[in-house]
Amino acid sequence: MAEGGTRSERKRAAILTAATALFLQQGYAGASMDEIAARAAVSKQTVYKHFADKEQLFSTIILSTTAQAAAFAEAVPQLLPGSGELEQELRDLAHRYIRVVMDPRVLQLRRLIIAEARHFPDLARTYYERAPERVVAALAIAFQRYAGRGLVALDDPVLAANHFAFLILAIPLDKAMFCGEESSVAVGEAALDRFADAGVRVFLAAYGDQVVREGGPVEESAVREQ
Amino acid sequence: MAEGGTRSERKRAAILTAATALFLQQGYAGASMDEIAARAAVSKQTVYKHFADKEQLFSTIILSTTAQAAAFAEAVPQLLPGSGELEQELRDLAHRYIRVVMDPRVLQLRRLIIAEARHFPDLARTYYERAPERVVAALAIAFQRYAGRGLVALDDPVLAANHFAFLILAIPLDKAMFCGEESSVAVGEAALDRFADAGVRVFLAAYGDQVVREGGPVEESAVREQ
Repeated sequence: MAEGGTRSERKRAAILTAATALFLQQGYAGASMDEIAARAAVSKQTVYKHFADKEQLFSTIILSTTAQAAAFAEAVPQLLPGSGELEQELRDLAHRYIRVVMDPRVLQLRRLIIAEARHFPDLARTYYERAPERVVAALAIAFQRYAGRGLVALDDPVLAANHFAFLILAIPLDKAMFCGEESSVAVGEAALDRFADAGVRVFLAAYGDQVVREGGPVEESAVREQ
Repeated sequence: MAEGGTRSERKRAAILTAATALFLQQGYAGASMDEIAARAAVSKQTVYKHFADKEQLFSTIILSTTAQAAAFAEAVPQLLPGSGELEQELRDLAHRYIRVVMDPRVLQLRRLIIAEARHFPDLARTYYERAPERVVAALAIAFQRYAGRGLVALDDPVLAANHFAFLILAIPLDKAMFCGEESSVAVGEAALDRFADAGVRVFLAAYGDQVVREGGPVEESAVREQ
């Protein structure tokens, strides 16, 4: 991250790295611009050249983590095309989804945002809208399309998308908030896949099965169509 | 809370109230014993008479919130007796469960524990074990008993209990962590009940339906038995 780029870009990256580490260790109030500058091995003047104040630096760090969520949300339509292999495509997406969210850096910053939500309500809400809510919205659109083809039965696509998201993520995510991101690394890749697969199974039992039971010519043809 | 009791008990309660407010506002590091004493209108000496140090005071406050979870966990067996009205008893429990967790004070302290989990890993883990994990364990025992009577079909009662818990709670709880406990109060009682009912519906579709489809004489007699 600190490699490559112009000298100014490298300094900016060094400031962001130092500030992230300090915010995580000491919280927003505990981290000083002096210490951030010292850790980044730049002058305090240089810090202020890149960031107007501590709040802007903090906000930049928090919102930078939404890029991964945005990229995942944008991939959802391709990941959930509504092929005949519904369970397989949901599982593949779920395996990716749980890795995006259970990334140790994402988990650390998620805890930091929750910690500072009281002091920075607008920032926390913006994060919420750009990260978790954005992915759920993309899932809702995909599920609505599924429903249009008779692949699932649902009245409320956003509710179904939220159910899906938390069936996949909530168990390891909640534990990581209390027991540390190390707990999730310790869980291991295989366990993450098991959480994902179990979540997909419950989701399909609730939202997919009706189609099988109530399935008629309309649904059949819709499934075949593509 | 500060009413009644001996003078010493009233002082202790005043210290806890003042310290809770300060920890919530300023985090653990930002709250000083001096300020806690001043807010509680007692001497610093009195604070130390009741609590050995700031860490013990913090720990007392955090762990006091697990009492509600423990009481709820203890009520689970009576709330889920495995009557014929499975959906109704799950809904009734879910309506209570979501209110226990979405209590504004519980939400505030939950955010505080997550915020300080990095600095107090043992305390955060103890909270996690005594509050969310304890309720899930009680649910798992109830679901295992359900399974023994053929009311639900499941291989892993703890996984099923976690699915149940997060299907009920996760949507408003996650939002409250980012958007504030006011967001959950704003949601209103009726919305909490809808989240709870929707969660129960998905849970039963996944774990209850199989019995209906695969139900044979064994399950039938097990259901009648009680």
